[in-house]
Amino acid sequence: MSSKPVKVGIVGLGRWAKVLTKAAMKSDKFEIVRGFSRSEDKRDAYQQAFNISCAATMEEFLANPEITGVILTVPNEQHLPVAEQVAKAGKHIYTEKPIANTLENGLQIEALQQRHGIHVMVGHSARLLKGTRMIKDAINSGELGRVSLIEANFSNERALELTPETWRWYRDKAPGGPLSQLATHQFDALHFLGGEIEEVSSMAAKLSPVGAEVDDQSLTLMRFTSGAVAYVGSCWTSPGIYSIRVFGQKGLMHYELDFSTWDTPDQLHETSELYIQRGKDGFSKREVLTIPPGDMFQDELEMFAEVCAAGESCELSAASGNVALAVVYAALRSIDENGAAVKLKDIFDQAHANIAAKQVDFR
Amino acid sequence: MSSKPVKVGIVGLGRWAKVLTKAAMKSDKFEIVRGFSRSEDKRDAYQQAFNISCAATMEEFLANPEITGVILTVPNEQHLPVAEQVAKAGKHIYTEKPIANTLENGLQIEALQQRHGIHVMVGHSARLLKGTRMIKDAINSGELGRVSLIEANFSNERALELTPETWRWYRDKAPGGPLSQLATHQFDALHFLGGEIEEVSSMAAKLSPVGAEVDDQSLTLMRFTSGAVAYVGSCWTSPGIYSIRVFGQKGLMHYELDFSTWDTPDQLHETSELYIQRGKDGFSKREVLTIPPGDMFQDELEMFAEVCAAGESCELSAASGNVALAVVYAALRSIDENGAAVKLKDIFDQAHANIAAKQVDFR
Repeated sequence: MSSKPVKVGIVGLGRWAKVLTKAAMKSDKFEIVRGFSRSEDKRDAYQQAFNISCAATMEEFLANPEITGVILTVPNEQHLPVAEQVAKAGKHIYTEKPIANTLENGLQIEALQQRHGIHVMVGHSARLLKGTRMIKDAINSGELGRVSLIEANFSNERALELTPETWRWYRDKAPGGPLSQLATHQFDALHFLGGEIEEVSSMAAKLSPVGAEVDDQSLTLMRFTSGAVAYVGSCWTSPGIYSIRVFGQKGLMHYELDFSTWDTPDQLHETSELYIQRGKDGFSKREVLTIPPGDMFQDELEMFAEVCAAGESCELSAASGNVALAVVYAALRSIDENGAAVKLKDIFDQAHANIAAKQVDFR
Repeated sequence: MSSKPVKVGIVGLGRWAKVLTKAAMKSDKFEIVRGFSRSEDKRDAYQQAFNISCAATMEEFLANPEITGVILTVPNEQHLPVAEQVAKAGKHIYTEKPIANTLENGLQIEALQQRHGIHVMVGHSARLLKGTRMIKDAINSGELGRVSLIEANFSNERALELTPETWRWYRDKAPGGPLSQLATHQFDALHFLGGEIEEVSSMAAKLSPVGAEVDDQSLTLMRFTSGAVAYVGSCWTSPGIYSIRVFGQKGLMHYELDFSTWDTPDQLHETSELYIQRGKDGFSKREVLTIPPGDMFQDELEMFAEVCAAGESCELSAASGNVALAVVYAALRSIDENGAAVKLKDIFDQAHANIAAKQVDFR
C-alpha cells in the first residue's frame, strides 16, 4: 500500500480527470486511490491509463474508508447532487470550477460544509499561476502601493468554431458566452488580488458569423469594497490572450501568458512575461521579472490534500467560488438592465430567496 | 521672404506653442510667419526663441493677408471666442484638443465652417502615432479580420500631485479627471480605429490621498455602430501607460509606448512595442513589428497646411473632435446614471437643444 499521507478518490473520469491525475502523480503529499464514473468504458480506460482501480457504483466508491476526500470532475449540473452524496459520506470535496451551474446550487454546496462537517474546495486554479502570486506578494508587501485599477483579459477563438452540436452554442448552457466560460476565471483572480467585490457593470455583443445563440464578447467593470476598480474583457473571436495588469500608487505590474500551454503547466513560465514599472517609470523603464516554474494543478490538489489532512478550509473555498459565480450573474443582470451597476449583495440575496422559496415548495 | 507654400499664424504662445513651432520648423510644406498673445512677455520670449514676429493686437494679427490659417493653443474656454474672430477673418483654424471646453462650444466652432467658408481641424495627434496607423492599415487590408473588441489605456501619476492651486483639482475644470484629460485621446483613437460610436457606459472612482475634487479613475465601455465593443481605462494614480489592443477574427495587435517621451516624438518609436498574433497564435507566437520613426506633431501640422492649401477638410475634423468630446459627456452622464449605457446621439441632441435655448435667450 501507498505511504503517501492523504488518499483521495475521483468521480468523473473524462479529459480533465486525466490532467489532474497526471498532476497528482507528481506529488508526494497525496494519492488518488480510487475512481468512479457511471460509464464502464471510462472506468476501464482510466484504470488502464493510471493503474488506479475504479468502483462499479457510487455506493461502493464512497464506502471506502481510506478515502478522506473526493475530487469531482463531473459536468457542472451534477456538482450539487454528487457533492450531496459525497458530503453525506463525510468526505471533503474538491470540485472543478464553476462551483455549480447556478448560484443557488453553489450556495447549497457551500451549505453542505456545516451540515456534514466537511470542507468544499473549488478548483479556481488560475489564481495559483506563479505570476499572479508574485503580483499578490507585491501588493501585500506594499511594493505597488495602494491598488487603484486592475485590468484583465481572457480571450480565445472558440466562438468562431461553435456548432449547434456543442453545448456552448446555447445561451442557457453557457450564459453570456465568454462571460461564464472565460471571464469567470479572471473574476476569481481579481477577487484574490483586489479583495471583496461590491458591484458589477457589464456589456455584451454577438459578432461571430457562426450564428450561435450565445454572446461572444464580454466586457465587465467592477468596483471593490476597497474603492479600487477593475475591468475584465473576454473576446471569443480572436487569438488567445490571458493578461492581468495591476495599477498601484507606487508601481504597476503586467502579466501575460500563453494559455495554449495551459494543459502543460510546468512549461507555462517559459511563454509568460511579467514586468513592473516603479514610481513614475514609463514603459521603456519596465523591469522584467523572472517567473519560476510552477504547476497550478499540482498546487491546488496539494491544497486539497491539506484540507483533507487538517480538516480546515483553504483560500479556494466554496464561498470564494460562489463570489466568482455571483459576478457572472450580476453581469448578466447588468446586461439586461442596459449596463447599470448591480450590487453583488443583491445577487446573493436573490439566490438565497430562490432557495428558500423552492424549499417551501417541496414541503 | 519664405518660399514655403503655406503660411500660418499662431495664437497663444505658451509651452505647447513651442512644441508645435519646433515641429513646424522641420517641415518644408508650411511656415509659421506670425504670432500673437495678449501677454507682451510671451510675445517677446516667442519672438526671441524662434525669430518669428508677433502682432501687438489680434486685429493686426488677423489683418495679415499672407496668413491663410491660424493655429490656436489658447486655453480651452477661449477656443470658441478666438475661433469666431479667426473664422470671421476668413482663415482656416487648427485648434488644440479638446475642440472646446463644452460640447455646445465645440458644435458652435464646427458651425463656423459653413458660416464663414473655412475649415476647422482639431489636433488629436494620438491617432497619428505610427503604431496606431499600422493597426489601422492592418484593419483596412483585412489582415485582422472583423474587429470585435478594442482595449485602450492611458494612465499616469498626475492625481498624486494635484494641489488646490492646479486647475485639474476642480471638477468643473477637469470633468471626470482622467476621463477628460487622458481617456479622451483614446476615444479619438478608437473612433479612428473602430468607426462610429453608438453608446457609452462608464464608471469612476476617487482614490488619490491628496483630496482633490475630481475623480482619478475612469473606466469606459463603448459600443460601435459596427457592433464591435471597446474599453478605455485611465488611472491617474500609477506609472504611465499608453496602450491599444485590437482583437480581430483573424489577428490581434497590441501597441504600447512610453508616453514620457511624448514631447520628443521622433524618439517615440524607440520606446514603443507593436506585435501581432495571427490566427490562433498565442502570446508566445507573437510577431514583433518594426515601427518606423515619426512625428505626429509635424504630421498634423502638415495636414493643416494641406487644409489651408486645398481648402478641404481632413480626418481630424471639427465633427470628429466633437465625437471625442461627446463621449466624455456621455460617460459623465452614465456615471450619474449608475453606469447605464448612454447613446451618443442623445448627448448631441441635448447639446444642440442647449445651444438653441441659449440663442433664444439672447434675442
